[in-house]
Amino acid sequence: MFSQQDHQYMALAIKLAKKGQYTTSPNPRVGCVLVANTAERTQIIGTGFHKKAGQGHAEVNALADATLNYPKLIKGATAYVTLEPCSHFGRTPPCAQALINAGVKRVVAAMVDPNPEVSGRGLAMLEQAGIKAEFGLLENEAKALNLGFIKLMTQALPYVRLKLAASLDGKTAMKNGESKWITSAAARQDVQRLRARSCAIISGADSILTDNAKMTVRWSELGELQQSYKKDDIRQPVRVVIDSQNRLTPELAFFKINSPIIIISTLKDQALENLTVWPHFVEQVPLPTIKNNVGEDKVDLTKLLMTLAQRGLNDVLVESGANLAGAFIEQDLADELILYQAPKLMGGDGKNLVEMPNITALSQAKSLAITDVRLVGSDIRITAALKKAAK
Amino acid sequence: MFSQQDHQYMALAIKLAKKGQYTTSPNPRVGCVLVANTAERTQIIGTGFHKKAGQGHAEVNALADATLNYPKLIKGATAYVTLEPCSHFGRTPPCAQALINAGVKRVVAAMVDPNPEVSGRGLAMLEQAGIKAEFGLLENEAKALNLGFIKLMTQALPYVRLKLAASLDGKTAMKNGESKWITSAAARQDVQRLRARSCAIISGADSILTDNAKMTVRWSELGELQQSYKKDDIRQPVRVVIDSQNRLTPELAFFKINSPIIIISTLKDQALENLTVWPHFVEQVPLPTIKNNVGEDKVDLTKLLMTLAQRGLNDVLVESGANLAGAFIEQDLADELILYQAPKLMGGDGKNLVEMPNITALSQAKSLAITDVRLVGSDIRITAALKKAAK
Repeated sequence: MFSQQDHQYMALAIKLAKKGQYTTSPNPRVGCVLVANTAERTQIIGTGFHKKAGQGHAEVNALADATLNYPKLIKGATAYVTLEPCSHFGRTPPCAQALINAGVKRVVAAMVDPNPEVSGRGLAMLEQAGIKAEFGLLENEAKALNLGFIKLMTQALPYVRLKLAASLDGKTAMKNGESKWITSAAARQDVQRLRARSCAIISGADSILTDNAKMTVRWSELGELQQSYKKDDIRQPVRVVIDSQNRLTPELAFFKINSPIIIISTLKDQALENLTVWPHFVEQVPLPTIKNNVGEDKVDLTKLLMTLAQRGLNDVLVESGANLAGAFIEQDLADELILYQAPKLMGGDGKNLVEMPNITALSQAKSLAITDVRLVGSDIRITAALKKAAK
Repeated sequence: MFSQQDHQYMALAIKLAKKGQYTTSPNPRVGCVLVANTAERTQIIGTGFHKKAGQGHAEVNALADATLNYPKLIKGATAYVTLEPCSHFGRTPPCAQALINAGVKRVVAAMVDPNPEVSGRGLAMLEQAGIKAEFGLLENEAKALNLGFIKLMTQALPYVRLKLAASLDGKTAMKNGESKWITSAAARQDVQRLRARSCAIISGADSILTDNAKMTVRWSELGELQQSYKKDDIRQPVRVVIDSQNRLTPELAFFKINSPIIIISTLKDQALENLTVWPHFVEQVPLPTIKNNVGEDKVDLTKLLMTLAQRGLNDVLVESGANLAGAFIEQDLADELILYQAPKLMGGDGKNLVEMPNITALSQAKSLAITDVRLVGSDIRITAALKKAAK
């Protein structure tokens, strides 16, 4: 049983963890609150969050904060932390040991480490040192902070968000191809923030070729984030592009931005592709193909996601056309849909939002659960979880 | 300038008017609050609303309420009424005269009568009797009560709501026609309430034939309305069906419910149609046709709406397939879209939400302004105003 006060402090720790939302990747977002129970009163003596891979963990930052301001109150304090303190030496010493050394008396973790190999070890280390270690407080809220990190640890796959935009009648363009600026500037800023949160962005060669798109995060379009972050804090997600027909060329705007790119080609075309001279930040990854229902060779998307997972890219955003988006959905590889709907009606001749040729009966239609609906500028933004078919 | 108290009393009058939302048709929804300013305090002495055509108007009901409870406080009171008191003898004597006779000192109307032939006359009658008459308080809120009544009075056309339902990708059925129960039970109940609010429901013969639909209001599906209304209060809207190819037959379930039906046929086929023997509650209205862009003869929808307006049907709901819905939108004849979105993705092969063959460029796409978005059960309900093209 956790007290009302426990809930409040953990809620604060979660709020702190969110400050790392745009910067910790591929590390998890973690927040920590240190609270002293003196004879007179209960008071917060230190707070911290993890900001960036290679920098201090939340617990270490909170301890440093407390050491600066209330050094005498640390001994006997309670630590609220949104993720089980680590028990192993990574780039930093184990946080569980740091909490032991500091003399805290009680540690409350929102959730255990999702990595099955270390899960529970941090809490065990604390208990062996005589510290009361508990977990499970605001667990769902804490899990929501790190969907990508958790999925990578538990399934060796990234968490896949699918971003789509259409008119109210589900059209993305007119028959003649006209589609520019269907959604509002506010919605496009929102997409920029989505990109900034992601470890990687997956698109198809079509999107790059048709719009000469760069698929980058543009500081000038981040809106409110400019208040809370420095320009240098925001990193470019890895840009992943599927080019199964070797249509991309180094002259495209996409390749003019010096930031990591992964070109997914097919094993078959590997020899051909290698002839092109790409900039140094471009990596080529040939992958096997599978035949789709009309006999076309398509890159094996499961293999693609496994490839990204192996590189620690745990939170990926798919921004693509109707076919690639449809393939992710049909194959149950997408976790979340983020759909922007412009207040327009384009009519039946317009281009469809998702093509899913394998779905022919209503019982095969994909079901979702709406998790959020709101206005973004003059557009509607729908967030929904894709339900996985039982296998 | 209206005071804070004026606002509060008018807000109450609007709340009262809403009680008539499902029953006053074709009359407007009107509420009235009578307030006495005594030396000691300001107090509400009577309230009333219009419930049903042929029954008392809001002002008369509020005066009756005050006469019962505070007869001595009526003289010198203020009347807050959501619509200008009527000045003419209809089924009831003029309300302006009733207020004069009762001795009220001040009348505040939210809006003037929208009927250009009588607008302002009620207020003038009051002023001539030495009563301070004002208007314009919470005018927009008052207008929202009576969109149909106002449009009928000002444009001699009904207010047209278009109800549509689709998956998140804008599909209404699979290619094979499968579509049953796309939206949830809660959304279907919501549609029942939409029907109950409407004077008439327009559908196409296709909808009646495909689903053997009755297009009626079913008391058992009205949900929360069952608490606030008696079964007999709820009336069946007039069911209007466009049957330009004379495909309907009296055997359909649609014709088994004894409640007014208007069959819209074409002038051309009038002779043929007259051969069928319809139930007594069925009226046949032949209308001229206009050619659509692919040369087909389609009932002139403007003429259809004028026909309904002539019958006093001021608030109509269109529940139809993609072609008829698209025609209303293309011709700028719909005022409001109510779109239910089921949390499903059906894929590009599914059937389109609206067909608008005349729209081929993005600049012709129809723009809307979202006025409300909310969850209804597991579905999303979007309400949006259709912007009219400048003519």
